[in-house]
Parts: sequence; C-alpha cells; structure tokens
Amino acid sequence: MAGHPWLLIPRTVRFGDTDAAGVMHFHQLLRWCHEAWEESLQRFGIPAAEVFPGCGAGAEPPAVAVPLVHCSADFRRPLHCGDGLQIVLSPRSTGPGGFEVAFELQRDAGPPAAETVATALLRHRAIAASSRRPCPLPPALERWLQASVS
Amino acid sequence: MAGHPWLLIPRTVRFGDTDAAGVMHFHQLLRWCHEAWEESLQRFGIPAAEVFPGCGAGAEPPAVAVPLVHCSADFRRPLHCGDGLQIVLSPRSTGPGGFEVAFELQRDAGPPAAETVATALLRHRAIAASSRRPCPLPPALERWLQASVS
Amino acid sequence: MAGHPWLLIPRTVRFGDTDAAGVMHFHQLLRWCHEAWEESLQRFGIPAAEVFPGCGAGAEPPAVAVPLVHCSADFRRPLHCGDGLQIVLSPRSTGPGGFEVAFELQRDAGPPAAETVATALLRHRAIAASSRRPCPLPPALERWLQASVS
Amino acid sequence: MAGHPWLLIPRTVRFGDTDAAGVMHFHQLLRWCHEAWEESLQRFGIPAAEVFPGCGAGAEPPAVAVPLVHCSADFRRPLHCGDGLQIVLSPRSTGPGGFEVAFELQRDAGPPAAETVATALLRHRAIAASSRRPCPLPPALERWLQASVS
Repeated sequence: MAGHPWLLIPRTVRFGDTDAAGVMHFHQLLRWCHEAWEESLQRFGIPAAEVFPGCGAGAEPPAVAVPLVHCSADFRRPLHCGDGLQIVLSPRSTGPGGFEVAFELQRDAGPPAAETVATALLRHRAIAASSRRPCPLPPALERWLQASVS
Repeated sequence: MAGHPWLLIPRTVRFGDTDAAGVMHFHQLLRWCHEAWEESLQRFGIPAAEVFPGCGAGAEPPAVAVPLVHCSADFRRPLHCGDGLQIVLSPRSTGPGGFEVAFELQRDAGPPAAETVATALLRHRAIAASSRRPCPLPPALERWLQASVS
Repeated sequence: MAGHPWLLIPRTVRFGDTDAAGVMHFHQLLRWCHEAWEESLQRFGIPAAEVFPGCGAGAEPPAVAVPLVHCSADFRRPLHCGDGLQIVLSPRSTGPGGFEVAFELQRDAGPPAAETVATALLRHRAIAASSRRPCPLPPALERWLQASVS
Repeated sequence: MAGHPWLLIPRTVRFGDTDAAGVMHFHQLLRWCHEAWEESLQRFGIPAAEVFPGCGAGAEPPAVAVPLVHCSADFRRPLHCGDGLQIVLSPRSTGPGGFEVAFELQRDAGPPAAETVATALLRHRAIAASSRRPCPLPPALERWLQASVS
C-alpha cells in the first residue's frame, strides 16, 4: 500500500536534470525511480549489501542478483528545476522470483490535490549470480515486498 | 526500413555505463537510444537547430517542440564494457503530429547472425513551443520520417 | 563556516553511481557537489528561480547567470554502494562577481572521527545573461555567500 | 604527440548533455574525456578487457586497476547542442605507476583555426586490484603511453 512510509520518497528536480528545452530530460526519471526504490529498501531497514553487489571493500556479492528486465515511463507534464516531487511506489509480485514497482510522480500543486506529472514501471527478476538462472527472490526483498503489498 | 544507412548507428559500451554488477546500468540504454536518434537526424542531413532548442548562442528555438511522451525498454542479455553494438532504428508515424522509434540493439556475435541484446521504444509528440498544444511535426522531421519508412 | 546547517548535506551512494570496478564512478562526484550546492541554497531559503533558468513554465530566466568556469576533484578512498556521506561545503568569494565552493566528502567511520574520502572544488562567475559579460553576483547568492563565510 | 590518430577523438554535443541554461552541463565534459580516453585505447588496439573490469561474462578482471585519483576542467566557451568537437588527448607519465591525460576540446570555427572551448585533466594511478597498493602500469597501458608521447 502506498500508505507505508517507506513507499513515499521525496525528490527535488535539480539543474543538471534539465535540458535546453528548460525541462527535466526524460531518462533522468528512470534514474530517480531506481534510486527511490533503493531508498525505499533502506528506509524499510534492508542493508544495500543484501541486494546490491559492490557494497564495501571486502563484501561478498549477494548470491542472488535482481537485474532489471523491463522499464517504461509516461510523461504527462513538464518538470522544472526546483520542482518538489513525491515519488509513490507500488510494488507487486510478478510470480515466483520476480516483482515490479509502479511509480507515480506527484508535484505539490496546493490543495485540494497533488498533480501526477509522470508514471513509470521497473520490473526485476531474480537470478542466481553464478549461473544467471531464475531463482526465488532474496529473503530481504521478499520481506519488503510482502510488507509493501499488505 | 532499417536498411537505410541513417538508421544503423554503432555504439560501444563504455566503463562509466556499467555498474557494480559488472554490466551496463539500465537507464544508460535510454540515453543511447535518444542519442542514436539525434545521430540519425544528423546523418540524414537535418541540422540540430531545426529540432532542438539551445543550438547556438543566438539561435531562435524551433517553433515546434517534440517532447518525449513515452519510453520503454526490454533487457535480454547483459552488456559488458567494450561490447560493440549496432543500434537499429525503426521509426513510424503515430498519427498527425506524432511518431515513435523502435530500437533494436544487436551485439556482434560472429556469423551467421547478430544477437539482439535489448529493445526500446521512444515516442514523441509535436507541440507548439509557445502554447504547448498539439501541432503537426516540423517539416524536417516529417521528411526524415517519410524517407525512413519507405 | 562549515558549522552552518545549510552547509552540511547528506548523500547516500546509489547503485547507478558505481561502475564495474565496484566503486563510485568518478564524475558522479561532480554531479553530487553541484546538487549539494543547489540543496544548500534551498535550505538557506533561496528559490531555485532566483539562480537557475528553466524554473517554471512562465518564469523569466534570471538576468544574471552563474556558469561554472572551473572544477576539480581528488579521490582518496573508494566509495561503495550504500555508503552514507556528509558533504561539507565551504564557500568563499573570488572577488567581485565570483565565488567558489570547496567540498569535503566524509564517510561515517564511527567515533572518534569521520573519514575524508574525496574533496572537490566548483568555481562560478556571474555574467549578464543577455551579454555574457562579467557582472556582480545576484543579491540572493551574495546573501548566501556572506552568511556562509561568517 | 597530439598528431597520432588515436589521440584525436571527435564528439558531438547531444541534447541530453545540455541544461536549462541552453548549454552543455559541466560534468558531462568529464564523462566525455574518460570516454575519449577509452576510445583512444581502442583505436590504439588495446582490448577493453586488458584495462577495465567487467568486460565479458566470464572474463577475469585485470590484476592491475588504474583508478582515477584527480580530475579538473576549465570551461572557456559555452557549448551548444549539435556542436561538433575534436577532443585532443595529450598523455604523459607522472612517474612509475601513474599517468595523466590533458584534454583540449576544440570546436570547428572555420579557417584559419579551431577554437579551444574547454580543457580538462584526468590523472590515474595503477594499483594491484587485490591489495590496492601502488604498482607499475599494466603493459598495454605502458605501450599506449610510450607510443603517445613519442
């Protein structure tokens, strides 16, 4: 449910996110969404090292990787430098060993309502890091997913 | 048709395109596709200033903007630093004032065939730069589109 | 003085900031520093529209631009995905119409002390947006600068 | 010597490289320079796998890493979308186990001369990948360095 505090991530549009049309350059949105997912895991209490390789000098990489297999985004309103956004995450399972997160980007438009300026979707699938064959989600991600949908 | 020379753009995966999983980080693909589209226009003979704002100190911005309204990508195989790719563009009209480009990323896999490692789609819609209302495509883009589909 | 709350900006290394060597890819640091400067202005109370062009659909661009004319960075320790950092900003004037910000990136290393993992410098010069000739800093930036060095 | 063909790399400014000021956003320059260095090695005949980790699914990472320890850049003229550039590389040794590359970015300004719009410097130091202790440059890089300065 989007009501969970770890599924609502604030973000401000920065100058380097824009292009010469004066608005956010499209692919920055995909970067924001992935970073919002990482922050969601962090707020839920999952150390980055349980999900991502490269976390610490001597750290063993996780046995299970969760590569991104699909992404999409729809752009409804131009976003400007300095705009304050709320990124609302809605995760769901896509079967054993997979999940996707729908993202809704809302700009503070004053009462009564926020304005949805863009939406996006990131889909991941778990694979064994050594063989790259499909496998179940790592337990930490499964916990985050279960808690997020209830 | 993908056989046109301006619809086949080479690209090499660079070190900064990768992440700590050792492979291309997903959102770089969307950047590559947009840049491949820009290079396609350039090879076809369209000056950047006819399509993009910000081209030159005193240049008037084009009267028509073509913001990206939708994008998607599917990732089939991991891409590594140094991999040589061919990006194949397949543009098509989406009605008056709109077009989309399908991208197929092929890695040289030796004969007999290249390997499709990822696909993507970028969809644009023409709007008047001043009013942001839908309008026909700029003539230069219309020429590129007609030549590309025939 | 670094003791001011608007000169201490937290940042977490994200997965997309890393490369296949497993550590932060160098040029992300420059991006972080510019974004930390933008956040410093925001925390101090300066609306983005007073400094940056492109802030809002109908917004007039500021009459004075402050392009970056020089940057440098030194990398002392590798940074890993998930690392929590404090970015300490030390602004100073470089004469009429110019300023620079020294950045020190500290990783939480437990008591008794934080570890400096990288330093950077961004130098800006004010120019009239229309003529691109040197001019005094915009009043809002001058206020931030004076308050930051005292 | 800059006269060597592997030390002259062309580049076109793309739309996503710009910001809402209508010009190239500063940190893109550092990315271009690193990519120009990678392309220089490639043109000289050095496979990416001899220098960079993550090159191929089963590839052993190189025993020697060459992390970037310092970078700087100076911005003289604004760069616009569509601008065609030549990046001129001037490598030199900084002692055993280290080297730096000076970059000069020239915009085609018509005869009689190109215009230098920016300069940059990237400095690397060789370390053993396992111990992270200083060590000699990998032989392939040493060959490229010797050939480049003669």
